[in-house]
Order: sequence, then C-alpha cells, then structure tokens
Amino acid sequence: MKHYDILIIGGGPAGLTAAISARNTYPDKKIALIRREKIALIPCGIPYIFGTLEKIEDDILPDAPLEKNNVDLIINEVTGSKDNTVILKNGEEVSFDKCVLATGSKPAVPPIPGIDKDGVWFVKKNIEYLRNMKEVLNSAKEIVIIGGGFIGVELADELAKKGKKITIVEMQDSLLPTAMDKEFGDMALEVIKDKGINVLCNTRVKEITGSKSADGVILDNNNKLKADAIVVSAGYKPNLEIAEMFDIDVDHKYGIKVDEYLRTSREGIFAIGDCVRKRCCFTGDYTSIMLASTAMAHGRLAGSNLYDIKVVKGFQGTCGTFSTKIGNIAFGVAGLTEKQAKKVELNYVVGYNETVDRHPGKLPGASKIYTKLIYSRYSHILLGAQIKGGDSIGEMINMYSVIIQNKMTDMEINSMQIGTHPLLTSSPVAYPVINATVDAIMKWYK
Amino acid sequence: MKHYDILIIGGGPAGLTAAISARNTYPDKKIALIRREKIALIPCGIPYIFGTLEKIEDDILPDAPLEKNNVDLIINEVTGSKDNTVILKNGEEVSFDKCVLATGSKPAVPPIPGIDKDGVWFVKKNIEYLRNMKEVLNSAKEIVIIGGGFIGVELADELAKKGKKITIVEMQDSLLPTAMDKEFGDMALEVIKDKGINVLCNTRVKEITGSKSADGVILDNNNKLKADAIVVSAGYKPNLEIAEMFDIDVDHKYGIKVDEYLRTSREGIFAIGDCVRKRCCFTGDYTSIMLASTAMAHGRLAGSNLYDIKVVKGFQGTCGTFSTKIGNIAFGVAGLTEKQAKKVELNYVVGYNETVDRHPGKLPGASKIYTKLIYSRYSHILLGAQIKGGDSIGEMINMYSVIIQNKMTDMEINSMQIGTHPLLTSSPVAYPVINATVDAIMKWYK
Repeated sequence: MKHYDILIIGGGPAGLTAAISARNTYPDKKIALIRREKIALIPCGIPYIFGTLEKIEDDILPDAPLEKNNVDLIINEVTGSKDNTVILKNGEEVSFDKCVLATGSKPAVPPIPGIDKDGVWFVKKNIEYLRNMKEVLNSAKEIVIIGGGFIGVELADELAKKGKKITIVEMQDSLLPTAMDKEFGDMALEVIKDKGINVLCNTRVKEITGSKSADGVILDNNNKLKADAIVVSAGYKPNLEIAEMFDIDVDHKYGIKVDEYLRTSREGIFAIGDCVRKRCCFTGDYTSIMLASTAMAHGRLAGSNLYDIKVVKGFQGTCGTFSTKIGNIAFGVAGLTEKQAKKVELNYVVGYNETVDRHPGKLPGASKIYTKLIYSRYSHILLGAQIKGGDSIGEMINMYSVIIQNKMTDMEINSMQIGTHPLLTSSPVAYPVINATVDAIMKWYK
Repeated sequence: MKHYDILIIGGGPAGLTAAISARNTYPDKKIALIRREKIALIPCGIPYIFGTLEKIEDDILPDAPLEKNNVDLIINEVTGSKDNTVILKNGEEVSFDKCVLATGSKPAVPPIPGIDKDGVWFVKKNIEYLRNMKEVLNSAKEIVIIGGGFIGVELADELAKKGKKITIVEMQDSLLPTAMDKEFGDMALEVIKDKGINVLCNTRVKEITGSKSADGVILDNNNKLKADAIVVSAGYKPNLEIAEMFDIDVDHKYGIKVDEYLRTSREGIFAIGDCVRKRCCFTGDYTSIMLASTAMAHGRLAGSNLYDIKVVKGFQGTCGTFSTKIGNIAFGVAGLTEKQAKKVELNYVVGYNETVDRHPGKLPGASKIYTKLIYSRYSHILLGAQIKGGDSIGEMINMYSVIIQNKMTDMEINSMQIGTHPLLTSSPVAYPVINATVDAIMKWYK
C-alpha cells in the first residue's frame, strides 16, 4: 500500500491549484494527485474546441506544474474507501494523512422524456466524450441547445461560426438569466440573434423525439423543432460519490458540507471547488454558482491550511465574478445583480454609465461600455457590477470584484485614483466606475 | 461686476471635473469656469494628434458637460486679483465665494543653450500652437526628441508611423525611467527600437545648434545629430501665476501648497490637479507625478467639499497609476517601483510571473503578460505593480491600483476571487496577480 502525506482527488483546476499550494506550504511532504482522466482539460475552454480552437488538444490543462512541484500523478479511479485510505479500480490502496476532495461537477440532466436517447449531448469535461461529440456536431446541420447560460451561449456562438443552424431554448425570460439582469441578458440576446442564432425564451422542452436516436424536440407550446443533434447545457451538479464513500456529510443539491476552512465532517479530509456547498458572501444563502475563481481560492486556501490554519478567514463566501465574450462584445458580472438584491430584500440604488473605452472616442478599436452598479442605499458599499463592452471588460470586472471584496463605499470609490490612457481606457473624466458611482450617489444625496 | 458662488479657474480635466462635482453637490449654487483656451484638449490624447488621429479637433475635451450642468463658461485670461475677485484681461471683474484653482502645468524648459531657437517645440496643451507644430513636424524628416518619458516615447511612436527618422535622447539609463524599473524601461526600449526609432540613453543634449532656427543638437559625448525639428519632452511644471496673484503659499518646485482637503493658504480658495503639491501615499514625500487620475480625484473631492467637509480623508496621497501602449505592447504601473522602494529604504520582496492573457494560449489575440509585484516584506501589503502585455493591461493596472489603495496583504490577495475567461484573460490557474503574489510569499515564507 502506498502512503502519501497529502492526497488530492481530482485533477481539474481546483485540484491542481491545491496541489501546488500544498507543495508551496509544505515543501517536505509527500503529495499525490489522483485523476480519472488521462488528459485533463481546461473546463472553461471547452466551448472553444467546437470552433475557434483547431483541435481539442489545444485545450489541455498541462501536467507540467505537477511534475515541477514534485506531485505524483496517479491516473486511476477511486472506487472505495476505508479509514484514511482510498481503494482504486485496480485494487490498489493509497493511504493519506490529509486528503483534499476536488471531484468537481457533472452536467445536470433535466427530467425531459427522451433525454437519454443517442444524439443528446452534454458538455462533459472528458476528452474522449468531447471528441465524439465534436465529430457528430461537425456533421450536424441543425442543432438545438437546451439552456441559455454561459456554456449554451458560448457553444452556440462557436457552432454558428461553422455555419450550423442553431436554436437555443431557454426557460427563463432572457439569456444568461442566473448571471445577469434582464437588460444585460437582452443585450447578449441581441448579439446572439445578430449571428443568425435562433433563441426561444420563456420556453421549455417538453420531450425529445426520435426512435432510438434523437431527431428533434417538442416545446411546451407544442411546436416542434427538427435537430440533427441536441446539446443540453442546463447547469452542473456536484460530484458527491467519493465524499459519500467516506461517509462525509453532503447536501445533495449544493454539495459537500464544509466549514469556512474547507474542512468536511471527516477529520483530515477537505473539499474544494465545484463539489462543495458554498454561500453567497453578502447573504450567506447557499448558492449554486460554480466558478473557477471560487475553486482557485478554495484550492489555495485548503492547500495552505492542511496541517494548521495559516490563512485566517480567507474565504468569506462566493463573490461571483464572471466574464464572457459573444462575437466582439464582452460581458462581465461581479457580485449581486439587481434581481438578486431584490430577491433577498437588500435596499439598493442603481448607478448607470455609458461611455467609450478609448479617449478620444475616435481612436481605433473604441467600443461602447455600458455599466450598471448596485449599491447598498444605506451601507453605501458596492454590491454588484454588470458591464458590457470590448475586451477590456475581462480585467475591468476583476477591478470591480476587488472593490466589492474590499467592501468599498461609494464615497471611497468617488475619490479613488484610477489610471487611464487614450489607447487603452475611457477618459479620466468619463471613467465608468467613477461616473456610475456618482450617478448612484445622486440617488440618495440631498 | 459679475458674482459667482463657485468659480473654477482652468478648463482641463481637473477643472471640468471639479465643476461637475460642485454642481452635483450644490445644485442651487451659481457656478462658472474660466478658461484661457477657446478650445480645451484632452491632454493625454495630444501625442496621438501627430499620427493616429486624423485631425487635432478629434482630441477636443467637450464643453457639453459644462452646459448640461449649468456651469457658465468664461473664455478669458485672469490677469490680476483683489480680495475674492479676479480681474480678467479685458478689465472685467468676477467675484466669488469659493474658488478652485485648476491652472495645470506647462512644459519644463531644461537649461540647454539654444533651447529658445525656432524649430524647438514643446508639447503644450494649446490647439493653435499644436496646429503649427504638427504642420512643421509633418514636413520634417529628422526629428530629435529630448526626454524619453511617456510623452516623448508616445510621440516618437506616432511620428515613426509617419516615416520620420526619430532619435530620442534620454539622460537616464532607460526609457520611462521615473515611472518604471529598468527591466520594464528596457522592454519599452526594445519595442521602440523595433519601430526603427533611435534611442540614446545615458546621454544629455549639451547644445541646440543652428543660427536662428535649430538644425541639430550636440550631445555630451560631443556627437552631433542633425534635426529638422526638435521636440522637448522633459516633464511639466505647475502653473503658479494665478496662485501667486492671490498671495497663496506655493512651493516653486512642487506646486501650490494645500492641505489634505485641497485647501490653499487663502480661505475659500482650493487648488487641484497638476498645479498642486502632492505627496506619495506611501512615504509622504513630495512627488512630481502629474496624472489625470490624481487630478480627477482632486476635482471630485474639492467639488464636494467646498462649503463643508462631506468626504472625509478622501485623498491619502498620490498612488501613481499609469498605462501606455507602444506599438502593440501595453505597459502599466501602479504604486511604487523597486527603485523607489529602495530609495526610501522600504524593506520589500519582489514577486514575478510570466503567462499569457488568454487560456488556452492558442486562442487568437493572446499576448504574453509579464508581472512584477513589490510587497512590503513585513507589513505584507502590496506596494507596487508593473505589468507588460496586451490591451488588457489598461484595466488590469486599475485592479492593482484598487488593491494598493485598499492596503491588501499578500495573504488576502492569495485568497481573492478573480474572474477569468478563455477569450479575455489568463487562466485561473495562472492568473498573474495571484501567481506573482505566491512567488513573493515564497520569498518570506519558511
């Protein structure tokens, strides 16, 4: 039986990060990472293997950091457990002092009759599965995508580049409905429609048709759509099997129960990333948000705190920070949306700003930026930001995320120093975070 | 005699911002802005009128925000003062209750023999002057630029696009030497040299030659350079004339003396922006950094605090935040450089990271990002960041600036949540702020 001081189960970004963090913190410990897949993929890059990236192999999460950090990589499946030991598929046993579960998530399967037919695909993080899926989608002409979240929208955008006839079916009233307010979802909808993609909102799939292989869907309004392939992108569910093997407490909806140091109910076993139950940093409510940003923070914290707590109160709950790009338009969201603020009865004011991301606006490459900020009306801290614009959105949303995580107030932001440059940002006079903040201040200031 | 409740002198970004901020805070006050120039320019856009922008008029700072905010615009020159009154060039007098000096800066004139000859140009913020300068530079073949700071480098990049033969003469050991550490200045140097621009570092101009009109320079190594035009970009000096008319205390090197609420030695008179003496937010030392970001923060604060202090301790000293783009490479700096930390004997550790700004790196538009972070070794707060990369640098440096202004520690940053997207940012596993921070932590962690 092999023994490791630290055993990490799962080789996605969370597991990888935990391994590196553990190595940095505990240079002398023996560390291994067990992964089911021969080749690990970059999860958020998966939509791009269907269009922009030439081949699936361009989306590989490299193993070099494991080697460089002297972490043994065990490609195998965990099929059982006893005490501080896992049993692998080939019967081998590996024992540990400390274990980190980073088992990730799997596509949710909505209860639609016919969803188990051939020709219905899920966006799994498995290279063999995706290779088959890509081949089938390549030869398909008409594709129905069930779910208009990030994966569905990004995949539609990529497949449309290949000339496919795409329909997105979304049960809520716009695209990206759990991430953004409707006005931003509608902007995304407009970009998607401009690409010739058909979008049906407020619509559910009632049934997937076809004898053995799927050939279309029936909608809740009884309309039928023909489809050569169907992709289901209806969210992800935490992988709880290995936690359950260890008799660890789990919440079947939200994930493995952990304390704020990512410790499970079993001493010595931690859990991180998509498989873990998380709370919203504002409300404390459980949240289904699964994000690499959260998983990375988890991985670094668990890796640092395995033998004693070195980083105190490092994870204060999920501060959802997303970005995406559809066509040439980028979207970013950090913290709470207006919809979410309303739902939990947070008293808020909204600040808006519209400007361009170069100054003067006649410089090449200028895009419009549209900004919406949600402030607590009485605590005055920034609760959330939504932005739409050019590529600079990707890092701008991280600035907002840092502001939110620091609980900065409107008055502090109003006197903040921000760098600007004609070829790279908005004008200092029109800089969005400041101007949208002033707009919010004007709503409570008398 | 006209009377205004609030009179702002100077129509650059600082004055404009103070006017808008005053209007937002004091909706019922009578406000005017006096400006010398018929047309105000966007200062940091000026280098781009020599290349990328079609015409100078594309770089105008619009007057519409003044009109929209019911601020009277007086185009005139202040030539004298008495009590709470200014005397204009045409003899008219304007009195005020509160006054904000936003008189800006003018190009520094280094003591080089021959610098007053025709054919020697300065980068002034005056449309008529710049129109003549542009005409002359357009017909020049060989141009010598004295000073390799931001303006000199940006101007050289623009003029090189027009096929000019350019030489930059910089007395320090690399380009952008007051803003960046040498390794970053050398990266800028490489980009500039790749454009066919000649750069002479560690070199001074001893004399400007030519009978009446300049025809070249003699260097301190006695080499001679021929030049059809010479541009001096050797920094800026605060405009202090109007402050002196009011007998306000000034520091001739650094600017008008103000307290932390931007109040001058004369009751009721505030001063903001380039004309004001500033302190570094870390050391309290006076600093010559003149930045729109600082000026904007000043403008918003003074505009809010004219009648009583509404925003408490809003300005805690300059946190220099710069960005620029040379060719396709962008540079960003926030806070202290290593050179500056050393100079004031701050005990520091440096964290480095090199990665790409897309993930996987094979996605189109990927650029390398190089990151250097300066941390206080014992206080653990981030003191400064220098980055080089693609266009995303422009907003990424603002994220760093927010981190620095919030005095975040390495451990806080290590557990921070950051959003990433394949088409917009580095990978979550390789995200630069986190990875460079971990590199810094490893230097003190045992």
